[in-house]
Amino acid sequence: MTILKRFGVSLPGDLLARFDNEIEQKGYQNRSEALRDLIRDYLVKRDLDKNEEVVGVLNLVYGHHVPNLSAKLNDIQHDHYHNILSNVHIHLDHHNCLEVIIIKGRYSEIKQLSDRIIGTRGVKHGELSFNSTGKNLSGV
Amino acid sequence: MTILKRFGVSLPGDLLARFDNEIEQKGYQNRSEALRDLIRDYLVKRDLDKNEEVVGVLNLVYGHHVPNLSAKLNDIQHDHYHNILSNVHIHLDHHNCLEVIIIKGRYSEIKQLSDRIIGTRGVKHGELSFNSTGKNLSGV
Amino acid sequence: MTILKRFGVSLPGDLLARFDNEIEQKGYQNRSEALRDLIRDYLVKRDLDKNEEVVGVLNLVYGHHVPNLSAKLNDIQHDHYHNILSNVHIHLDHHNCLEVIIIKGRYSEIKQLSDRIIGTRGVKHGELSFNSTGKNLSGV
Amino acid sequence: MTILKRFGVSLPGDLLARFDNEIEQKGYQNRSEALRDLIRDYLVKRDLDKNEEVVGVLNLVYGHHVPNLSAKLNDIQHDHYHNILSNVHIHLDHHNCLEVIIIKGRYSEIKQLSDRIIGTRGVKHGELSFNSTGKNLSGV
Repeated sequence: MTILKRFGVSLPGDLLARFDNEIEQKGYQNRSEALRDLIRDYLVKRDLDKNEEVVGVLNLVYGHHVPNLSAKLNDIQHDHYHNILSNVHIHLDHHNCLEVIIIKGRYSEIKQLSDRIIGTRGVKHGELSFNSTGKNLSGV
Repeated sequence: MTILKRFGVSLPGDLLARFDNEIEQKGYQNRSEALRDLIRDYLVKRDLDKNEEVVGVLNLVYGHHVPNLSAKLNDIQHDHYHNILSNVHIHLDHHNCLEVIIIKGRYSEIKQLSDRIIGTRGVKHGELSFNSTGKNLSGV
Repeated sequence: MTILKRFGVSLPGDLLARFDNEIEQKGYQNRSEALRDLIRDYLVKRDLDKNEEVVGVLNLVYGHHVPNLSAKLNDIQHDHYHNILSNVHIHLDHHNCLEVIIIKGRYSEIKQLSDRIIGTRGVKHGELSFNSTGKNLSGV
Repeated sequence: MTILKRFGVSLPGDLLARFDNEIEQKGYQNRSEALRDLIRDYLVKRDLDKNEEVVGVLNLVYGHHVPNLSAKLNDIQHDHYHNILSNVHIHLDHHNCLEVIIIKGRYSEIKQLSDRIIGTRGVKHGELSFNSTGKNLSGV
């Protein structure tokens, strides 16, 4: 069970007024809810800066007619199978595949593995994003 | 079949020397291969700037004990089922889920839908990245 | 005079513990100070999303031997003199100049002007960053 | 004098057609000019990745009534005077100052110094961007 703790914050009146206005527009129910989100975003950034264990989501687009590409991408992933949580493949059209590879590890490991995958001949374009593993990010 | 076209490029000698040095370190076989990658990256950025159809990959972390969260996330996605290509769910640990939602649409549509999903109460943190649909990004 | 307002926030205990730990490492004196910073960062992002008036800081590197470049850059800036607050020029070495152009306006205006300047022949590389105009970001 | 070198590039026909179309819209005179820009952007990114010497441009907004803030910011900068190339101060309005600090050094040094400055109590918001020192980025 999550135990909520309550504490006081002091903010300049005009800053608070503008914050209230913005979070209302965004649909937040109250200040605590909005502040929790800001705090979690901050903690995720800190995890990345400190090279903690995080989750990386790599997306790739490649042509499915490129000879051996799929096999090469598989080989690289098997070298790191303990880091790879999952792999989704989508047939975008007759020629193009989207592959999303979900990786767990330290920021630096994930970055290195992604660079290797994106650099494989035949991969058209790849982008990597990150998230927390969820630990210490209590979700209320 | 992909038809390769050949053309001449002129570059200052020192710029070319440094480029050659960097791409060799990165493992490229030749300049054409490296330039194709730079060109594709450029075209993906242009697609986003011009609000063309692209693929968005949204990742979310949330606690799987949050009541109704999963149902709410499903509802939002069903309102946009024609944009959502796929959905992967990973059990990160006893408490935490990672969900990756793959969305096709214009940049602005994908951004709006993602904001709504990320803003749902109980979602701890979300990140959105983009890729091309692969059209006009010939993959050789 | 800035009037401070005080209000209560409730946070899951584990989230609060981790937040306290991180902000102490960062040198914050107390939670209010750290939360004010997070709130201001959030408001600056909202200003950009909503195309409000902001400050853009554009930096350029170019070779100072390129004929007419300086004149061309000046011409573009004079077309937008009401947006340009200041301009700093630094002689990086015998060949290279850094120019920092400080621009006030809506996000979209600043972006368009920057693209035009960066695209001028002879500009080696340019980067644009943003800040608030400081209004509604009370600084305590 | 800059010596231009000429070499051949091969590209899939459809990729080349789309590239030509995009760079024409952007106002480039020819492919070489556009490719030079892409190559320079790539080299700047490599400089940052490899922690080479670069130029950082830090912008800050702060309230000019905050006691001792200006003195504190000066003190920090004097500790690093050999890294700081220049400093511009702009009076945004009756209350707000924009300060742009131009820093030369390795990426990691600049990042650390910026974090310290941004973290100073009274600074409302700061953003850091980077550029090359211009060496090895021949500007034709």
